[in-house]
Amino acid sequence: MLFRRFLFTPSKITNDILQLPTHELLQQLGYVKQASSGVLHWLPLGLKTLRNIEGIIRRRMDESGAHEVSLSSLSQRSLWETTGRWSNTELFKLKDAKKKDYCLVPTCEEEITWLMNSYLTSYKDLPIIAYQITRKYRDELRPRGGLLRGREFLMKDAYSFHLNSEDAVSTFERVNATYDKIFTDIGVPFVSAVADSGDIGGDLSKEYHFIHESGEDTLFRCNSCEAVSNIEKCGSYPVESKEYLGDVSVKYALNEENDTLVCLYYPASRHLNWNLALEAVDNDLEPQTRYMTNEEVLAKFTENYDPMFNGIIRVMDVRLNSRSNFPDFPLKSYLKNNFAQLNDYSIVDVEEGEICAQCEEGELESAKSIEVGHTFYLGKKYSKALNATFRQQDNSDVVMEMGCYGIGVSRLIGAIAQVTRDPKGLRWPSSVSPYKVSVCASDKSVDQLNKVKALLDYKPYTDFDAKTSIGAKIQQSHALGIPIAIVVGPKSWPNVEIEVRGNFRSKNWETSYEKLHSQLGWEYNQESGKHFVLHENANDVVNILLKDL
Amino acid sequence: MLFRRFLFTPSKITNDILQLPTHELLQQLGYVKQASSGVLHWLPLGLKTLRNIEGIIRRRMDESGAHEVSLSSLSQRSLWETTGRWSNTELFKLKDAKKKDYCLVPTCEEEITWLMNSYLTSYKDLPIIAYQITRKYRDELRPRGGLLRGREFLMKDAYSFHLNSEDAVSTFERVNATYDKIFTDIGVPFVSAVADSGDIGGDLSKEYHFIHESGEDTLFRCNSCEAVSNIEKCGSYPVESKEYLGDVSVKYALNEENDTLVCLYYPASRHLNWNLALEAVDNDLEPQTRYMTNEEVLAKFTENYDPMFNGIIRVMDVRLNSRSNFPDFPLKSYLKNNFAQLNDYSIVDVEEGEICAQCEEGELESAKSIEVGHTFYLGKKYSKALNATFRQQDNSDVVMEMGCYGIGVSRLIGAIAQVTRDPKGLRWPSSVSPYKVSVCASDKSVDQLNKVKALLDYKPYTDFDAKTSIGAKIQQSHALGIPIAIVVGPKSWPNVEIEVRGNFRSKNWETSYEKLHSQLGWEYNQESGKHFVLHENANDVVNILLKDL
Repeated sequence: MLFRRFLFTPSKITNDILQLPTHELLQQLGYVKQASSGVLHWLPLGLKTLRNIEGIIRRRMDESGAHEVSLSSLSQRSLWETTGRWSNTELFKLKDAKKKDYCLVPTCEEEITWLMNSYLTSYKDLPIIAYQITRKYRDELRPRGGLLRGREFLMKDAYSFHLNSEDAVSTFERVNATYDKIFTDIGVPFVSAVADSGDIGGDLSKEYHFIHESGEDTLFRCNSCEAVSNIEKCGSYPVESKEYLGDVSVKYALNEENDTLVCLYYPASRHLNWNLALEAVDNDLEPQTRYMTNEEVLAKFTENYDPMFNGIIRVMDVRLNSRSNFPDFPLKSYLKNNFAQLNDYSIVDVEEGEICAQCEEGELESAKSIEVGHTFYLGKKYSKALNATFRQQDNSDVVMEMGCYGIGVSRLIGAIAQVTRDPKGLRWPSSVSPYKVSVCASDKSVDQLNKVKALLDYKPYTDFDAKTSIGAKIQQSHALGIPIAIVVGPKSWPNVEIEVRGNFRSKNWETSYEKLHSQLGWEYNQESGKHFVLHENANDVVNILLKDL
Repeated sequence: MLFRRFLFTPSKITNDILQLPTHELLQQLGYVKQASSGVLHWLPLGLKTLRNIEGIIRRRMDESGAHEVSLSSLSQRSLWETTGRWSNTELFKLKDAKKKDYCLVPTCEEEITWLMNSYLTSYKDLPIIAYQITRKYRDELRPRGGLLRGREFLMKDAYSFHLNSEDAVSTFERVNATYDKIFTDIGVPFVSAVADSGDIGGDLSKEYHFIHESGEDTLFRCNSCEAVSNIEKCGSYPVESKEYLGDVSVKYALNEENDTLVCLYYPASRHLNWNLALEAVDNDLEPQTRYMTNEEVLAKFTENYDPMFNGIIRVMDVRLNSRSNFPDFPLKSYLKNNFAQLNDYSIVDVEEGEICAQCEEGELESAKSIEVGHTFYLGKKYSKALNATFRQQDNSDVVMEMGCYGIGVSRLIGAIAQVTRDPKGLRWPSSVSPYKVSVCASDKSVDQLNKVKALLDYKPYTDFDAKTSIGAKIQQSHALGIPIAIVVGPKSWPNVEIEVRGNFRSKNWETSYEKLHSQLGWEYNQESGKHFVLHENANDVVNILLKDL
């Protein structure tokens, strides 16, 4: 060999390394290298892992009928001003030599809408969905956890364009079905949760999460109907017996027309949930009033207050009753006809153990989680701003409906590593592992090693420091998270030992074992969990085991 | 089908489209879409073409023992200041929210040297070569020709690290052999030329070109020894009979120590060639003096001029003789011992028809060309600045030697399109074509179309507007540059017609035809150049033809 092996992975894995936080572990094992805060270089092992995930996503997206494109990372200021997103403080901005402004794209709603609008003309062209897997940029002030929240990251973003909202919602559901397949292919247990649509805006949105105690998100799951929601969207009822007698807080808001005062009453001990409040009043709240103080809202409302024309709505959290300790009502004069009270709505953040507002039966259990995907039905937010229209059958022009769908590809690697790792190191599902199998051979077994390598369907990892012991090689293979290690030693030859590092998702291999073990010379030692097999048949056994890993 | 076909390619190809400049043609046919000057979005057809080229490069680089990485596009200012490249006016620069400076990488010598230096410690780790295929950025003031010179472009860049110059030069040769394989795989005739190493710096460099009249580069090729050189590196002798009696120009320069005046004399009708001048004086020229006027150089030299210690070298272009009309010599006093004259060097740009300085026999012929790859032996330029050292066997630390090797991947697409296109549109070699074959069927032959599709090894292009005629579909397939079109019509069924659009590189198919035509029911019509075959055997014939395309 003229060129040397990559030395990014230390030949000796120490306990100090194995105890590092996951993003440090990935660096120490040679998957990535941090270049600056939130900015990474991908090393060969990390790049292979990334490609595997890309492959899974690409296959499922193509299968769903989506078209792959690859948009520039540089986007012109004008588009972002049109949609009002140029002022986003997390945009990386730059000027070219001619002083023209660009940003590095964090997502591509603006560019893809501009692009598609220049090709899509007729109703016959819709619906259509395009996706890309490209680098994105977000100038996070506090980038965290390496891959989990980077300033440069790889993202799969898809965008769909539609005749009407019905078509858009049906595509939204269809992409969610594709996401279910993608995350099932990856093989790490996941949940999908009804979610707040956040800054992207829009009406419907769903999040994909891995449940894990290290997660920054909190999900609530009903133990009866099994619905999962992000805390922002989780409606709940109090446990019956608990009557609330404490202080009541109020948040004043205005409706969108600014002619009605909305008074949101809730237990002072709880957090108001703006999304639930919105649902209570059919989404008729002026967004700005969310961030104004009560005094500011009242001042705005009373400016032109006229009891004849201005209404008042009081929304009562379901936890309150007449014995709760309400604050004074600020207005002295109002007409009964212009006054309404909405009772029994849940407008605060859920707490563990409360009752599910969906089925009104089960208890809600909380879990920490890591978000790995997000789908949005966007409506006309971007298409309207960018005047993306199509011509209908009757020759009139209509603004398109849109959806957008993201998966943080590099984030996904960090999340999978985090939720699957254990005290021995990483523990990849075979779908994403950079190598499906390693061959750990003693220094003296070079010929045998080459024999085994030649028989395998998958190119094995053998990039060990020649001088280390078999034991150290197995330890390194396990720390790297490779699902299967084949151990080749002079003593056991012509048999080899197969050590399973991966986490079994099913036990189908046991059926194959019963059928084939005498035929393949395959012995399983239940105590050690190790398999022994004639080297000629190692490939068969590896393939059987990999299907469960 | 729930989603629509991509409508990036017009269903009707007009003559206006076919006559566009290549970068416009690629846009009109739906390969790419310009987002802003020098910045492109990749559409599905373009992305498939790009992936094919990436695949060829990746396969050959991996085979050569290179390790694939993927470095960030953001690079910190400090590294670029260390190597003196931060002041480059073509760097896209930006600041993050904390006012820290970054650039978008145009190449990655700084980052890769920093990265490798943190892993490479011992002589045992060398030699090693790493490569990546990633987006690069260059703020060209006048981006030209879309893909040929973009501000954002895809580049394969490789970097090698070595014990010593001997090792570095041997790797340089080895990478050049890999490049020969890559360009041979692509299938467009290419030449490699000894070249100037330009801004990257270093001692040895080789360029890869496609010869084409539209090219911006000029190459000279000897009709005897066949050596090809870029004009910057092409030494030449005048045709014997031509004595130069005209005016003589002089360019003054200083040696690196600034203690010797170098006077470069050459015919006033010709252009001085700095690289050839450097060779004449063993590379001992102060680079800055290249850009100073003669007056400035003389002023600097005479500041501390002392005939006892300061030397003078006169370099005479081989075309001059004593009868040429020399300018006055500026210095009146010098010592004979400190004065040297070098005769018979060629220090001007070659002209068509002059004699090759390599073999001193053949005539030099010029050709316009498009550069598509460049390899450099870098020496210690970057490793020294960034203090990239390794420990030798004797425990002393030594600065590594380096090489770097680029292929403009997106540029390559533009170049291939440019040199292979003809009046019918694009004409891809099958190695890079987004589809190897299309199936053009009449509206009434849907069943037959599906039968043929199912029998093909390669997924065919069938994305035509259903309403267009077979003729228009064939025209579109040809314009898109797909090497083979299978025509399925109700009249000829169960036979299909095979039209070859690609450019035959060999005629091996004729041997197969002689052997197999009766067996496959394969008829070739020499006049029309069309093949006719039973549809069941179309796949066999397509595969035979593709090997030559």
